[in-house]
Amino acid sequence: MTGPTTYFDPTHLDELPAKTADLVRRRIAVLGPAYRLFYREPVEFVRGERAHLFDRDGNHYLDAYNNVPSVGHAHPRVVAAIAEQAARLNTHTRYLDAATVAYAEDLLSTFPAHLGNVMFTCTGSEANDLALRIAKVATGGTGVIVTWNAYHGVTTEVAGVSPSLVGIEGLAPWARAVRAPVPAADGGADIAEAVRATLGELEILGLKPAALLVDTVFASDGVHPDLPGLAEAVAAVRKAGGLFIADEVQPGFGRLGSEVPGAQLWGFERPGFGKLGIEPDLVTIGKPMGNGHPIAAVVARPELTAAFAARSRYFNTFGGNPVAIAAAQATLDVLRDEDLPGNAARVGRRLAEGIRSLPFVAEVRGSGLFLGVDLVGPDGTPDEGFTLDVVDAMRQRRVLLATAGSGNTTLKIRPPLPFDHADADRLLEELAAVLAGRR
Amino acid sequence: MTGPTTYFDPTHLDELPAKTADLVRRRIAVLGPAYRLFYREPVEFVRGERAHLFDRDGNHYLDAYNNVPSVGHAHPRVVAAIAEQAARLNTHTRYLDAATVAYAEDLLSTFPAHLGNVMFTCTGSEANDLALRIAKVATGGTGVIVTWNAYHGVTTEVAGVSPSLVGIEGLAPWARAVRAPVPAADGGADIAEAVRATLGELEILGLKPAALLVDTVFASDGVHPDLPGLAEAVAAVRKAGGLFIADEVQPGFGRLGSEVPGAQLWGFERPGFGKLGIEPDLVTIGKPMGNGHPIAAVVARPELTAAFAARSRYFNTFGGNPVAIAAAQATLDVLRDEDLPGNAARVGRRLAEGIRSLPFVAEVRGSGLFLGVDLVGPDGTPDEGFTLDVVDAMRQRRVLLATAGSGNTTLKIRPPLPFDHADADRLLEELAAVLAGRR
Repeated sequence: MTGPTTYFDPTHLDELPAKTADLVRRRIAVLGPAYRLFYREPVEFVRGERAHLFDRDGNHYLDAYNNVPSVGHAHPRVVAAIAEQAARLNTHTRYLDAATVAYAEDLLSTFPAHLGNVMFTCTGSEANDLALRIAKVATGGTGVIVTWNAYHGVTTEVAGVSPSLVGIEGLAPWARAVRAPVPAADGGADIAEAVRATLGELEILGLKPAALLVDTVFASDGVHPDLPGLAEAVAAVRKAGGLFIADEVQPGFGRLGSEVPGAQLWGFERPGFGKLGIEPDLVTIGKPMGNGHPIAAVVARPELTAAFAARSRYFNTFGGNPVAIAAAQATLDVLRDEDLPGNAARVGRRLAEGIRSLPFVAEVRGSGLFLGVDLVGPDGTPDEGFTLDVVDAMRQRRVLLATAGSGNTTLKIRPPLPFDHADADRLLEELAAVLAGRR
Repeated sequence: MTGPTTYFDPTHLDELPAKTADLVRRRIAVLGPAYRLFYREPVEFVRGERAHLFDRDGNHYLDAYNNVPSVGHAHPRVVAAIAEQAARLNTHTRYLDAATVAYAEDLLSTFPAHLGNVMFTCTGSEANDLALRIAKVATGGTGVIVTWNAYHGVTTEVAGVSPSLVGIEGLAPWARAVRAPVPAADGGADIAEAVRATLGELEILGLKPAALLVDTVFASDGVHPDLPGLAEAVAAVRKAGGLFIADEVQPGFGRLGSEVPGAQLWGFERPGFGKLGIEPDLVTIGKPMGNGHPIAAVVARPELTAAFAARSRYFNTFGGNPVAIAAAQATLDVLRDEDLPGNAARVGRRLAEGIRSLPFVAEVRGSGLFLGVDLVGPDGTPDEGFTLDVVDAMRQRRVLLATAGSGNTTLKIRPPLPFDHADADRLLEELAAVLAGRR
């Protein structure tokens, strides 16, 4: 379980406005204590468009956090596609559906040719769970290697490879987390070296590796788009009989920006990855795939789905149903038609530059509209309390952000992709004001 | 992996009409070989209403299979609720949302008071996975007992307790399937006796039981709404420190019928269960919850969610998002306003009576609009080939059915709940004609 973050603390219920306190109280009564609310003062939104959200009183928030409504909140083309298909029919993948086949073909055309199959799920958790099932069947191995503060989802299987959720001590017996990417000062290791050491440990235990599973932007590890040593780590895993699974649930669908309109949707294709020649065996995609409608998928080498099919049939009741496919097709169409990957590259670059000039900023990493901003406190060292205060001060100024990384000293900036230059300017202005107030 | 069933066999591709063959070929190329299509001749639907489906050529099918669009295909109130909310906003449960809290309260009001919390997921698989995570944390046990041909979903964890998917040999090391409900002639045992024996085995192995997990209508085991010995089995599990999880993904939301309008939505509340005084510790719900929109949930005793929350926070990106909640609220409203549980009781009773009078019918079990019909072949014994032929002959007559049970000798009848007397008459007429043709 991760440490303190910008969640509401229920012991402070009485400090909230009466109407908010009442709703929070009713919510805790029915949803129970495992659910969290963002921010010291939770917020209730009622309407959204592009990167903008509005609360019940009409207050206007800038959304620099939500990566799921990736082509913009309530995008009219996606909404129309959902409404139109829902009004006609919503069944499942055991009947033929021409639109499902067409979407699968369209989606696969954005991947390298060796990734020729797609299997639909509803959530990124289910996609990672299925990818691990496939990898284990195909390799005969069980060992899975992830990074130090990885998050891959909430099913039992993938919670077991998500140290950011369950802690290192909560990992599954067959899972290992490498101390990367972690700053060397905090005991971090080069990922190639760390993976090789872990493979040696697995071998001693007689655990055959099934896969190295990484988020290609290392989001929960603090956003590290270019990780030296990764190609070497992948080669070592392959040599030991394991596969490389690219978790594109967060970085995928153009968020990392593209200089070529619509051409580069995936983290593993970025120059920082691509020049390394790393091509994944399995890719998982999700969150932004239907702009908020539940749909996710595993993209795989056909040899792997064949190995899986020899052992098990596959069906997911809602996975890739006609309404989900309509949402996903409209989302992909909008992404290309509005060249949102290009916008992400342009606006992200300017935003990163602007942030670099602010006080308390130690480093800005990232790509496109996925930025990790390392802050330092007044004494010049990383400071969790300081960073969380900044996030909450920004929320008070109606700009939504979060933190990334195990230490909660990195700001995570990850807005809907129609985030434009005016939005970037508003974010910069408010962040400058918040940081200036801390000198 | 289950045996032959009414799936399309790709080696017969060339026997299909050319246009169908082309689409099937393209589908296999992109979705891979783990996906299955229903029927020897697959079908493509383009529109639906109530219990009726229409293919591309305007042919009119009677749907006696699909339990997900439970209040009827493309129900206008559900469609309007989805469209309206999607056009305004779709976020997640880390912001406040009054409608989410109101739906949770409404839903919980249909359960016994001790089941006071609900946690939202996207799929029944995720709900069963989460219920097992909660049960294991709360009891400190790991053993899970299920029935002989149970199906509880597709994540790694719940596939490991789904013998109908992975076979008895594919069960997780901590899972056990009891030989019930299986006819005594096939080695079946009284469930109480079988569960006691399994608990004894677990004790010898040092495996503490976490839960007995059963579908309350034993759907994939062949539909057994009244299972003698179940109360005793539950008591034995509780005595050994385990919990009782009712999987209501298939029987729930009124499918089993109610004599009291809108009052009885759950399988564990049926007279056959209720008179036994069995109250579950955890309930999982899913499929019909949003009438096809992906939403599912775990309903739990608050002590159990508290034990879970002490170990882990909970968040599911799409689970219970505002559009999913709008779909679920509209579905629940329609279910009550149109008294579909009452309709299920009335029409189901008449349908069961009608089927009992047909040839080749050995037994009709069920409740409401969930019927299991044991067929026998011309020699008077259960006959898989005969039953599958009947299902395919019905599809040729445009009535959709499937099979249940490990032997595929039970017809499964499970239509959308607005199935009316005219629909029942059409089903009876076509089934009579198909069976008469086999004398």
